[in-house]
Amino acid sequence: MSVSALRVGRLREMLALEANVSVLVTDLNDVRYLTGFTGSNGWLLITESTVRLITDGRYTGQARAQTEVDVVEARTITEMITEVVADLDRSHSTRLMFQSSQLTVDLFDRLKSVSDRLDPIGSRLADLRRAKDPAELAAIERAVRYADRALADVCPSIDDSMTEKDVRDELEYRMRKHGADGPSYDTIVASGPVNSALPHHRPSSRRLEEGDLIVIDVGALVDGYHSDLTRTFALGRCSETLRDRYEIVREAQRRGVNAVRAGVPAREVDAVCREVFRSHDLEDDFVHGTGHGVGLVIHEEPFLGSTSTAILSTGDVVTVEPGLYRVGLGGVRIEDLLVVDENGSRVLSTFPKDLICLPSRPTI
Amino acid sequence: MSVSALRVGRLREMLALEANVSVLVTDLNDVRYLTGFTGSNGWLLITESTVRLITDGRYTGQARAQTEVDVVEARTITEMITEVVADLDRSHSTRLMFQSSQLTVDLFDRLKSVSDRLDPIGSRLADLRRAKDPAELAAIERAVRYADRALADVCPSIDDSMTEKDVRDELEYRMRKHGADGPSYDTIVASGPVNSALPHHRPSSRRLEEGDLIVIDVGALVDGYHSDLTRTFALGRCSETLRDRYEIVREAQRRGVNAVRAGVPAREVDAVCREVFRSHDLEDDFVHGTGHGVGLVIHEEPFLGSTSTAILSTGDVVTVEPGLYRVGLGGVRIEDLLVVDENGSRVLSTFPKDLICLPSRPTI
Repeated sequence: MSVSALRVGRLREMLALEANVSVLVTDLNDVRYLTGFTGSNGWLLITESTVRLITDGRYTGQARAQTEVDVVEARTITEMITEVVADLDRSHSTRLMFQSSQLTVDLFDRLKSVSDRLDPIGSRLADLRRAKDPAELAAIERAVRYADRALADVCPSIDDSMTEKDVRDELEYRMRKHGADGPSYDTIVASGPVNSALPHHRPSSRRLEEGDLIVIDVGALVDGYHSDLTRTFALGRCSETLRDRYEIVREAQRRGVNAVRAGVPAREVDAVCREVFRSHDLEDDFVHGTGHGVGLVIHEEPFLGSTSTAILSTGDVVTVEPGLYRVGLGGVRIEDLLVVDENGSRVLSTFPKDLICLPSRPTI
Repeated sequence: MSVSALRVGRLREMLALEANVSVLVTDLNDVRYLTGFTGSNGWLLITESTVRLITDGRYTGQARAQTEVDVVEARTITEMITEVVADLDRSHSTRLMFQSSQLTVDLFDRLKSVSDRLDPIGSRLADLRRAKDPAELAAIERAVRYADRALADVCPSIDDSMTEKDVRDELEYRMRKHGADGPSYDTIVASGPVNSALPHHRPSSRRLEEGDLIVIDVGALVDGYHSDLTRTFALGRCSETLRDRYEIVREAQRRGVNAVRAGVPAREVDAVCREVFRSHDLEDDFVHGTGHGVGLVIHEEPFLGSTSTAILSTGDVVTVEPGLYRVGLGGVRIEDLLVVDENGSRVLSTFPKDLICLPSRPTI
């Protein structure tokens, strides 16, 4: 049985899909997961016995090459809705399940006009995508490797002649040369007392300076799968305060990583990291959650935050990425990607985690 | 008056915003347009007299640096909703306008539980974003220039030792080196009888071959603004059929470009191109619309397709990109970015449009 048929089968099972019920999948990541289709426009209609992909003329050829499901062409939203109606008629469906977490109010209103009974599918597709199979894990591991290698390539050349953007450009180019399809997300290179304290800073033309902490958050994309890695470096000598903060984050991250295993509530991993910061009276400087799932989507279930209700399970691929940020002082973040397995969990990235002080150029 | 205050003012005017009415902007491109905020999570709440940005701890520092509006921190969707309620209470709003084209059904249901009257804002924000001001146009022109230059840099080195991915990597690296923040979208390098016939092909490891047509669709990103350029090249000698098709697309594109001016219905530009293909009995090989608006979003209003109801107006920045595709034979697309101005329109890209036959390496 093909991967696609297997996954559609598992979805049908999860939903206990009966005759006269259709499922409309509108989230493109889910469409890709279920069919292999990678276009930027497509709806998937699943009934008890049929699977149909509706897309426009830019993608019909590609869809037929990438998938084994029926491909139907529709040029506009109106034509897509018409195809949905035709499918509901053919399958005598009286109930249409849809993705309320993704479908817009406008499209919902259009669907309401063609179906009497619309039921949200809930988080079933996100749940289905959680446990990575060996092929998915292999893609993620390649993505991890390309980011690790790119960082190792670029690291020795980082000095105060470079701007944040320069570092980003080299990292992304090197990931590609190693085999990545591209960056997994906008690479973050955040340096110095202000920028490094912004967790999602965009690389600027700021030139690196002696004494900077430099937060580099970089991932690669391989066959649609993401990786996610953060390391913090010092350029030359940085202050003792910053070095202390680095060690505190290092300790929080170590404990977080150790807490990841099947059966553990996701929020517990977050609590473990947060507790380390609390013991140093620094909890207010940890301004985000501890981690998230990674797969076809860079931020997906399970989320590792204080309000998470997820329980970690085998096959989950998650980040552990505590950090401390204070504008004027600087920021530190250390992040690994882990897979939950039968033995607990395994860290996928191999890049070292001790503070690396990059040599600054001697002043003449 | 700041750009942000000006734009919020224009929105209030367009909506004839009264006391007791609030507007919730959830589309991040619109949030950016109205405030300058570039984070990946944020809602903007606008009343007759206040503007408030709700975001999480990763972005509060950044939001305060980038915008002049009130910034409120909320860690979760629930907290974001709580902040919306607080704002509605403070402003005594009895009506909340929202973006039905962007808001998901799930979030709509959450809002329904806190506001008695929810009204869709319609396409007002897309309309507001259409006419580009001089600063926006300057960013777009820079983005156009960087893509033009990158293509000019890379073009002479393209030969049959390169794969599609290699060409893509070099283009994206060169755009960055010229000053782009990154590619505007996934660069397309589509070669040969199959790949070039897929309008949105993703660069593969296919090595270029003598006789190939190579469709290169590449844009740069500058301060959030996109550019969009397509040229089709021949590697060595290509068949007469392909050269004929190139000239037909060239003619369709020329006529389409000439049709772009204020007051013209967008669908007329599409009709003009389609007519050229029809006169050669090739209309079935033109499988997409003729163009689209470009700005903070790569595909935005106005769309230039057969069902478009938009009328072009001064300040619109649009693509004209007819193409012909037949799997087994190959594809051709030629695309320029134009700005509609007082004199009709102006093509922004300078890259030549005659068929460039890249020299193939002599066989020894």
